[in-house]
Amino acid sequence: MKLENPTAIQWNFSQRAQKLQSSAIREILKVTMRPDIISFAGGLPSPATFPIAEMQAAFDKVLSQQGKIALQYGPTDGYGPLREWVANRLSTADAKIDANQVIMVSGSQQGLDLLAKVLIDEGSKVMVETPSYLGALQAFSMYEPEYVSIPGDEGGLIPEQVAELGQGARLLYALPNFQNPTGRTLSLERREALVEICARMGIPLIEDDPYGALSYRAEPLPKMLNMNPNGVIYMGSFSKVLTPGIRLGYVVAPRPLIEKMEQAKQATDLHTAQLTQMVVYETVKDGFLDKHIPTIRKLYSDQCDAMLAALQAYFPSQATWTKPEGGMFIWVTLPKHIDSAKLLAQAIEHHVAFVPGGPFYANTPETNTLRLSFVTVPPAKIREGVEILGKLIATML
Amino acid sequence: MKLENPTAIQWNFSQRAQKLQSSAIREILKVTMRPDIISFAGGLPSPATFPIAEMQAAFDKVLSQQGKIALQYGPTDGYGPLREWVANRLSTADAKIDANQVIMVSGSQQGLDLLAKVLIDEGSKVMVETPSYLGALQAFSMYEPEYVSIPGDEGGLIPEQVAELGQGARLLYALPNFQNPTGRTLSLERREALVEICARMGIPLIEDDPYGALSYRAEPLPKMLNMNPNGVIYMGSFSKVLTPGIRLGYVVAPRPLIEKMEQAKQATDLHTAQLTQMVVYETVKDGFLDKHIPTIRKLYSDQCDAMLAALQAYFPSQATWTKPEGGMFIWVTLPKHIDSAKLLAQAIEHHVAFVPGGPFYANTPETNTLRLSFVTVPPAKIREGVEILGKLIATML
Repeated sequence: MKLENPTAIQWNFSQRAQKLQSSAIREILKVTMRPDIISFAGGLPSPATFPIAEMQAAFDKVLSQQGKIALQYGPTDGYGPLREWVANRLSTADAKIDANQVIMVSGSQQGLDLLAKVLIDEGSKVMVETPSYLGALQAFSMYEPEYVSIPGDEGGLIPEQVAELGQGARLLYALPNFQNPTGRTLSLERREALVEICARMGIPLIEDDPYGALSYRAEPLPKMLNMNPNGVIYMGSFSKVLTPGIRLGYVVAPRPLIEKMEQAKQATDLHTAQLTQMVVYETVKDGFLDKHIPTIRKLYSDQCDAMLAALQAYFPSQATWTKPEGGMFIWVTLPKHIDSAKLLAQAIEHHVAFVPGGPFYANTPETNTLRLSFVTVPPAKIREGVEILGKLIATML
Repeated sequence: MKLENPTAIQWNFSQRAQKLQSSAIREILKVTMRPDIISFAGGLPSPATFPIAEMQAAFDKVLSQQGKIALQYGPTDGYGPLREWVANRLSTADAKIDANQVIMVSGSQQGLDLLAKVLIDEGSKVMVETPSYLGALQAFSMYEPEYVSIPGDEGGLIPEQVAELGQGARLLYALPNFQNPTGRTLSLERREALVEICARMGIPLIEDDPYGALSYRAEPLPKMLNMNPNGVIYMGSFSKVLTPGIRLGYVVAPRPLIEKMEQAKQATDLHTAQLTQMVVYETVKDGFLDKHIPTIRKLYSDQCDAMLAALQAYFPSQATWTKPEGGMFIWVTLPKHIDSAKLLAQAIEHHVAFVPGGPFYANTPETNTLRLSFVTVPPAKIREGVEILGKLIATML
């Protein structure tokens, strides 16, 4: 029955697949899962924050009361009550969001994929921050755009640069709150300017906001979505405020875009698990997040402080770093001649890991940068790991 | 704060998105959810077959024993023990499948999307059956191939036609067991011929097998995967043997393809929910499916018999239909001049629904065809609905 000596297939991959490369850094980072490594490399939330008991109760309730609905195919745009909940939560007095502007997705990464699918052609001009979220660059790159890197500073991307560089772009992708990878926040003035410039240029502005709720110093700044619901595409996620492993996020956008995304999602994975959406709705509908999020903020904020203090104590004065007001990441800039990928190789020998900054740049990488996450490491280990890194950097100066 | 009178965005959708159209049939079929409609339109399994109690127990166990792992981000290629389980289940004496040839996906539809993403360029030649599964056509079409429709008959697609028409094709997509939409099965001789021809031509053969376990008359025929694991891409799903709402399937393929798919999946949705995979593993690992699947077979098989008997009793002799040996669907061919979309409009007025056949054709639609599903309707209602359809067809002759 089995074929004798078949010829091996000469794989003829698509143009986009041929450009996919196994990342050397990803291979290195596989070792960071080892328990003897102090890892600042993760983008993972701390499992200490997962509301396991609450979700277990919700699974029990949904399965026993509505099992046949929860386990059946569901609507492509998502579970109605949860879309309604998202819309209500994002509405402000002068900018109401309607449930039909919400589409549920299998994690924000899928939101990025679907947006790229319906907005990007080969060679389309796409504006991103310098540096930008690596996962967004990966999602967009599958549709082969031409990136325009918008320069920024400590206050986030510079709106005037969008006006100067962005003519004819298909979209601008921005992560305004505690950005991944830099931890920086876009100021209120710049938000208003950015919304105004994008509206004037007719360019959809993607506001990716996975960390917005994780604000440690003050109330979060207003969302750009509410400044112009007709021109801003907002992306939210349950990964950082509930759990990432269930893969659930949402995109809020004007109806013409939601309709296209719904059609694209049907072709892509039919719909996001109905059971998951019903369980999350059951978990959050009575205000659980308002009690839960402050406990996450407290944990991460203490660890953020510990890392900032350790950097101050142990890093050489030639290094600089961001002072995030929320989120999960600190961004370090070393003297130009130090390659953080080489530093990583040495650091792993000393049982410490982080992510080199190069891959976060859409165009010209700045290889003297690196990203540190403080959320999964307790303060004592943070100090230990930062001290080791500081000494290694000192020897490279 | 809110922008005054912003200009509405003139959406500039991607070329692939511009081709997406809201399907008129899909709109019509929305009414088939009404409880007063006898619907043969669904592609849904019967919720009577969902093992709700077993899954509830599995969710409880996984969350209480391994909650922090289950709710965290997981590996892109899937949960190790479940990949191992899939590999073992698909291995035969002379064709072992290794766990590293398996990638878990968010339902088979995502498998189709990822395969298209890494194998299809704009204008690539892609072979499909006549007719073919609509969801596959939707997934592939996002990557803008040029379809080659391979003719078939009651015995499935005709292998010699592949040799004649398929030169230079990127892939052949086939659904050999109880095909959606026709219900037909590819014979053993044709399977062997097809595998041999595709291997000789160096063309990857996709064997999509969501219904293979739902065999009503005899043991399922051997899988093409096991005839040539180096040239066949096998797609399986938990949707029809467990539940569809959790969105879980798998693709089995040679390593070079799995590696590309893993990279593409990372860019597409990072990974499939770890919790779901652990729960399914917990549910199936001790042989549950071997007890459960026979109960599904019995239910569907009785309803299939009821529909075949009703067709015989009530349909005019000018109509013909397939006699499936498993799966969920019967395919009806009417006299050429009857447009099944028009028949549907009338049928809905008489509270009966089905899916017109036209959209299942990649190139030239045969509009005198239609698909009937027998799995969600009890026998008495099947007879009632088929009788109504039979009378309507008789008036159109």
